[in-house]
Amino acid sequence: MIPRYSRPEMVAIWEPANKFRIWFLIEAHACDALAELGVIPAAAAREVWAKGDQPYTDSRIARIDEIERETRHDVIAFTTELAEQVGESARFVHQGMTSSDVLDTCLAVQLAQAADLLIADLETLLAALERRAFETRDMLCMGRSHGIHAEPLTMGLKFAGFHAEFQRNLARLKAARAEVATCAISGAVGTFANIDPRVEAHVADKLGLSPEPVSTQVIPRDRHAQFFATLGVIASSVERLAVEIRHLQRTEVREAQEYFAPGQKGSSAMPHKRNPILSENLTGLARVVRSAVIPAMENVALWHERDISHSSVERMIGPDATVTLDFALARLAGVVDRLVVYPQAMLGQVNAFGGIHDAQRVLLFLTQNGVSREDAYKIVQRNAMRVWKSFGIDPDNPDRAAETDAEDAEAATHDNRLFFFLGRDPELAERLEVARLNDLLDTDSAAHHTRHVKTIFQRVFGRAGD
Amino acid sequence: MIPRYSRPEMVAIWEPANKFRIWFLIEAHACDALAELGVIPAAAAREVWAKGDQPYTDSRIARIDEIERETRHDVIAFTTELAEQVGESARFVHQGMTSSDVLDTCLAVQLAQAADLLIADLETLLAALERRAFETRDMLCMGRSHGIHAEPLTMGLKFAGFHAEFQRNLARLKAARAEVATCAISGAVGTFANIDPRVEAHVADKLGLSPEPVSTQVIPRDRHAQFFATLGVIASSVERLAVEIRHLQRTEVREAQEYFAPGQKGSSAMPHKRNPILSENLTGLARVVRSAVIPAMENVALWHERDISHSSVERMIGPDATVTLDFALARLAGVVDRLVVYPQAMLGQVNAFGGIHDAQRVLLFLTQNGVSREDAYKIVQRNAMRVWKSFGIDPDNPDRAAETDAEDAEAATHDNRLFFFLGRDPELAERLEVARLNDLLDTDSAAHHTRHVKTIFQRVFGRAGD
Amino acid sequence: MIPRYSRPEMVAIWEPANKFRIWFLIEAHACDALAELGVIPAAAAREVWAKGDQPYTDSRIARIDEIERETRHDVIAFTTELAEQVGESARFVHQGMTSSDVLDTCLAVQLAQAADLLIADLETLLAALERRAFETRDMLCMGRSHGIHAEPLTMGLKFAGFHAEFQRNLARLKAARAEVATCAISGAVGTFANIDPRVEAHVADKLGLSPEPVSTQVIPRDRHAQFFATLGVIASSVERLAVEIRHLQRTEVREAQEYFAPGQKGSSAMPHKRNPILSENLTGLARVVRSAVIPAMENVALWHERDISHSSVERMIGPDATVTLDFALARLAGVVDRLVVYPQAMLGQVNAFGGIHDAQRVLLFLTQNGVSREDAYKIVQRNAMRVWKSFGIDPDNPDRAAETDAEDAEAATHDNRLFFFLGRDPELAERLEVARLNDLLDTDSAAHHTRHVKTIFQRVFGRAGD
Amino acid sequence: MIPRYSRPEMVAIWEPANKFRIWFLIEAHACDALAELGVIPAAAAREVWAKGDQPYTDSRIARIDEIERETRHDVIAFTTELAEQVGESARFVHQGMTSSDVLDTCLAVQLAQAADLLIADLETLLAALERRAFETRDMLCMGRSHGIHAEPLTMGLKFAGFHAEFQRNLARLKAARAEVATCAISGAVGTFANIDPRVEAHVADKLGLSPEPVSTQVIPRDRHAQFFATLGVIASSVERLAVEIRHLQRTEVREAQEYFAPGQKGSSAMPHKRNPILSENLTGLARVVRSAVIPAMENVALWHERDISHSSVERMIGPDATVTLDFALARLAGVVDRLVVYPQAMLGQVNAFGGIHDAQRVLLFLTQNGVSREDAYKIVQRNAMRVWKSFGIDPDNPDRAAETDAEDAEAATHDNRLFFFLGRDPELAERLEVARLNDLLDTDSAAHHTRHVKTIFQRVFGRAGD
Repeated sequence: MIPRYSRPEMVAIWEPANKFRIWFLIEAHACDALAELGVIPAAAAREVWAKGDQPYTDSRIARIDEIERETRHDVIAFTTELAEQVGESARFVHQGMTSSDVLDTCLAVQLAQAADLLIADLETLLAALERRAFETRDMLCMGRSHGIHAEPLTMGLKFAGFHAEFQRNLARLKAARAEVATCAISGAVGTFANIDPRVEAHVADKLGLSPEPVSTQVIPRDRHAQFFATLGVIASSVERLAVEIRHLQRTEVREAQEYFAPGQKGSSAMPHKRNPILSENLTGLARVVRSAVIPAMENVALWHERDISHSSVERMIGPDATVTLDFALARLAGVVDRLVVYPQAMLGQVNAFGGIHDAQRVLLFLTQNGVSREDAYKIVQRNAMRVWKSFGIDPDNPDRAAETDAEDAEAATHDNRLFFFLGRDPELAERLEVARLNDLLDTDSAAHHTRHVKTIFQRVFGRAGD
Repeated sequence: MIPRYSRPEMVAIWEPANKFRIWFLIEAHACDALAELGVIPAAAAREVWAKGDQPYTDSRIARIDEIERETRHDVIAFTTELAEQVGESARFVHQGMTSSDVLDTCLAVQLAQAADLLIADLETLLAALERRAFETRDMLCMGRSHGIHAEPLTMGLKFAGFHAEFQRNLARLKAARAEVATCAISGAVGTFANIDPRVEAHVADKLGLSPEPVSTQVIPRDRHAQFFATLGVIASSVERLAVEIRHLQRTEVREAQEYFAPGQKGSSAMPHKRNPILSENLTGLARVVRSAVIPAMENVALWHERDISHSSVERMIGPDATVTLDFALARLAGVVDRLVVYPQAMLGQVNAFGGIHDAQRVLLFLTQNGVSREDAYKIVQRNAMRVWKSFGIDPDNPDRAAETDAEDAEAATHDNRLFFFLGRDPELAERLEVARLNDLLDTDSAAHHTRHVKTIFQRVFGRAGD
Repeated sequence: MIPRYSRPEMVAIWEPANKFRIWFLIEAHACDALAELGVIPAAAAREVWAKGDQPYTDSRIARIDEIERETRHDVIAFTTELAEQVGESARFVHQGMTSSDVLDTCLAVQLAQAADLLIADLETLLAALERRAFETRDMLCMGRSHGIHAEPLTMGLKFAGFHAEFQRNLARLKAARAEVATCAISGAVGTFANIDPRVEAHVADKLGLSPEPVSTQVIPRDRHAQFFATLGVIASSVERLAVEIRHLQRTEVREAQEYFAPGQKGSSAMPHKRNPILSENLTGLARVVRSAVIPAMENVALWHERDISHSSVERMIGPDATVTLDFALARLAGVVDRLVVYPQAMLGQVNAFGGIHDAQRVLLFLTQNGVSREDAYKIVQRNAMRVWKSFGIDPDNPDRAAETDAEDAEAATHDNRLFFFLGRDPELAERLEVARLNDLLDTDSAAHHTRHVKTIFQRVFGRAGD
Repeated sequence: MIPRYSRPEMVAIWEPANKFRIWFLIEAHACDALAELGVIPAAAAREVWAKGDQPYTDSRIARIDEIERETRHDVIAFTTELAEQVGESARFVHQGMTSSDVLDTCLAVQLAQAADLLIADLETLLAALERRAFETRDMLCMGRSHGIHAEPLTMGLKFAGFHAEFQRNLARLKAARAEVATCAISGAVGTFANIDPRVEAHVADKLGLSPEPVSTQVIPRDRHAQFFATLGVIASSVERLAVEIRHLQRTEVREAQEYFAPGQKGSSAMPHKRNPILSENLTGLARVVRSAVIPAMENVALWHERDISHSSVERMIGPDATVTLDFALARLAGVVDRLVVYPQAMLGQVNAFGGIHDAQRVLLFLTQNGVSREDAYKIVQRNAMRVWKSFGIDPDNPDRAAETDAEDAEAATHDNRLFFFLGRDPELAERLEVARLNDLLDTDSAAHHTRHVKTIFQRVFGRAGD
């Protein structure tokens, strides 16, 4: 977590003012419960609220730090300062509790708060993805497997795919939030020996947490491991979208581009150079978020009723992973929201190889119309090669120009050169009735490839659009 | 995955016979749907089932391998061999489908099968933990934080804590299973351009999968990342339980011991040496399972509509992580089931320091009975030191024997030496009414520390036992 | 480790025959040393060699397995079988040794053997990289930062860069090999209490190992952690080269292509489709090798004089990481060796934007010839925009065709349109003497960008070529 | 990196003042070289030094930040502010250079500086380990495998083992430092097209770096991966030592204890509780340092001549990993330096089971003196069981008290009960001459187990001590 990759709201969750505020709430709600149980005077509980329910200002925090330097114990420093505010009644604060009761429950609140921000981030991103998906629903572009042109799809389908992925991430995050939002006020080894379980129940209720069914001195760390693992999965999805944009913005592809404000410069020396640096940055941030996963898992196997090895890890990965992911999701939402897409460039790619992407479809059509698989394959292959040649490309050596002829020149006037050559293939004509052949050659390739786009949109968004 | 750490049922999921069987089912169900849609003849679909619905014997697998060596394409090798079984109708198999449709849907089925075994493993483990928890519900033992004696709890609470943790793991695994159990039959770039979405729906239904709402050429890998991350969390819980047992079996602790069959030897040279090697082994296996997590996350960011980099990773971590975790869970269930526990040794540890673990409780009692916090602390500390001294221990230098006297000798006749010395503390007597003091000194320490054990059992198991 | 990604020589290292053979050598050499020290009879040592120095055939291995099933102890099973070969003298075998002495020293030999194969792999790869580097030393291609065209370099420089990287990897691997090639025969806790250190020295010498200066029961695992970390770094370099090739093979780039054997098919449905699947596969294999790094590091912190948690990890990552990396390096060497490069396509990319990549150089030239930085920047930017326009591209909206005019048509006849427009820029003419301007415009752009290529080759290879 | 786990000297390396200072040095040295080459006026280079060679005060840094907010480019902001200091000559600064030339070379300097601090940390730790090793060289303690008593060694041997491990770490770190200490001033794609290689050579020389043989736009990231991997190995060694101390400080072991200042409190409620929290903290910090390893490896495969995904990762792991490891090493050195060891407690453990740890040695002695292995084993086992029984322990059920008799009482008066019982074993007496038997029984067990300690010390430290 460094300022460059941080947003203030998430940073604030991890700042002393918020932490001490949560500590206060835990202690004060516990006082209420203890008073209700008759363990401490009701007046004391009231006074804790009356005098202690104040923000933690810089001067209060400085005072706590000062006490901690003496006592070397953070919770004692906190309660001592609170006693300075509250007076005599403060001696009833923290009765029967263990430091971990406060620290772990506080961490639960902080992680839940962090999760809430991340949930909001995901919702913003999802809204951007949905808007862009419908906007580009019918924008034809080339699909690629292995980085090689395959068959067309639409830009909207790409966005829809990411939307579905981030919907899953939203569901995972909500589940992960529920996992960590538990309250443990159960004493030194989790037995409630010195504090009634009803205190835990009351504090949990007030803070919007569930009581931890069985804790040791601490809340079990498998919960946190699952939480950070979920952040790692989300970060990996961020990376996937970032990598997609980086590919689309390549000089040789230029189907999309991160938004450049008017006057914003790319490289200082090359004014024309517009780099997808936000997406590259997101790729790196994904690695950082993911790096929290294994330490969080290594934290699970604490010794006996607890050792404190998890603490230093969480002091770092707690803020680091949540702040970085929050920043990344917000940045990603912005990139998606303002991404400039180039439909003409996309169409250029779709048509770059004369409809050769219809090869599979032709193959299928032929076999479904009685042509043997072997013949069909030979026919398609031969005509695909003709298409290459018409572009002056020798597929066996793309670096050597193939000679072109008049037929090639004529083919070049057709968008779908594959269909052009198929229409002139005598062997095909022998094998297929004229009507069937025309059926094939007359079809609109784009319509064919996009005919189920609305079905998919319906699945993803619950609506297909107009 | 190596034989030493494998169980046959899980290994079988990843063997060719199962894989090809699943491929057949995908293709055959797809034929049914295609026939229903009128794309292929109904008779062809029936013949595929009639002649192809056979187990994949070694000789059939050898034949497929032989064809693959020629064609270098696994799915073509498979369909070719199938054609040898089915005859002419085989040409309708795989119509409009892409290899990934078969491969990815098959992986979904295999992961779901693997998850089912792991779910059964967890249930076996949970049963063992529950049985041992109730059996040892009231077995007093010392709780430790930082490896240092803290306050007592019961052995049953330890088991209950692990039970709750593995219940969470069971819920996580079921969720992860649902994540990966999806079916994609959507073609080269996920558009259904050459195959009707109803084929996918039919196959999904027959195989117990959900249709993938939007796929590219492949099922999105965030699903698999979440799956393997969940295995990593479960493995970390395995490690925690294994580490607990290793600690309990230490020579200096000996509160529990992995079961040794009569006649089974420990070290060859030291007949008395009984090592917790199963638990140590589980600690290592946990690291191995966890090592699948990051590669699975790195697999998410495939290029465009797919690249095949994920494939080699999954060919290894798919079997490795599931087989290893299956073995580990089964081994762990056995260790828990047969774990020998030593209640006398536990009591010995509980009483090892004369009830000094009641210090916090006394402190609390005093402050709740009007003694100032400072006085209470001084009184408790002084008497705790007296206890140490009665053991001949100088807490400032545990290595130097403290001199003991007659009072120490008398203290040594009491289990709870802390209470013995408190009863003789004049300053305490000044500050507390006799009745209140006797209230304190008369309490049963064990009963105090275990009074909420049933509450916790009720939370974890839904029943507290007798 | 699965057959698909394995090569027999590396697999053999991890097979029982090799393992038992190494065990025999350790035991037999130890007998020699013990005999020399007078601890056992010299005749016994001689007999161990005379009768035991035999290959471990399948039947011998089966016999050992049979014994292990009874005794549940691998080293005892081994020595028992050896006794069946050697007779009476066998009782002097393993005198004063601990199982770990044999197991750990054997692992050291296996890792050293594995390292030797990997070193040979690296040398093969380096030879291929060097050959291809010199072959393509002067083959101009476009350099890209952020996936965006920057300035030209040569294909040979790319290969040279990878060569330098793999030279470093070779040095790292040799260092890592030295780290793990140690011998420990020091007894149950490393004290040599029951065996003379000279035995260790003798065995180490015979097996080409160094004596471990201080062991516990085992060789310290920081050595192995460093070894597997080094494999992880090498795998990451494999990934970088694989990713480079995948980019060069993209449909929109096509500057290089993995070799396709005549008749080899790409996609079954799209005969023209040639996918960089070997390189994608290498990308995935890199993730797998890297996954061994963290477990190997987690293995370091064994308890006291050893626990056995490392063992299961090493049984898996030992073979997995070395076999997979061996396979990957061999595959990569093949890909590099046969990579088809397309110099015309490269030149096409270099010239795709009319020499706009000389922008920085012009800027520099102008400032060095007295033009103010601000003016220089304005001049360069203006003319770069002119170049874009001459291509019909509006840089502020690459998707909108810009109108072109007669001057653009004339520019289009020049390779370096930037220089063409600069030569007509009146403001530039005002600021630069004619002679200086001609100096600039007359230069050969390619020569400029490649003028230090030989210097770099000299650095990397110690020779620049002709 | 958070203040709690940071030391100022390492933090300073990563602060803007140091970064900008290094940038200045790179630029100013480059000016010297450019002047020498006649590319820029010598007077300009002199003026850059004369006016620019100043510390980066807070106000200068604030000014740079202000400019960066406008230009969104850090290196331009830096050179602009420098121009404000230097005046007209500043326009010759950064001639022909690329931002990465400055940024990457700066990172090299920072990592080298960080490595120097870490090297010093290791040397401090090594000194502490060496001092403690010699101090405790002969301090007998129990060795443990699997957490179970094995054979004795000395506390000094433990320290010696860690010393050897950290010596290796020191060598690794020096190698890793050399890996990253390279200088690249080679332009936009590493061709030196716009800057002479002699500039790089000069700057490298002045900054104590090596010229990078072949860079792209950046220094290749395999170097950094190796660097962070090395930090991960060192962190794992930190963990091993921390875990050892945690075990030794367990309540049931108490052979060593982290130093407690007089008056320092353990738990607030339990004054006697002294927790190894520093060592536990180190265990967690090791996880954090290790978490940098995989991201650093993922950074290697940058696209083409560079993408910027590595940058965000390094901005975080650069400071995080070095600051955390620096803190951890310093803390560990302090823990080792002041560790309180308890030789009496150690002896207590050594003698806890009546010399049963001599079992292996007796076994060996018997077989070497003509007793058959089977007989020897039976004899040793029987007498080991007698020892257990004399302690009232039934090894088959350690929880059930065994009955003791008069012979047991007599045995209890001997430190080595095993030898006591062996001396009374009639079967043994039959098999061994009296003289040989007495040889065995008369030996000093401690002397036997420690007889090679000096040999090991000689190996590790090059001296054995007195």
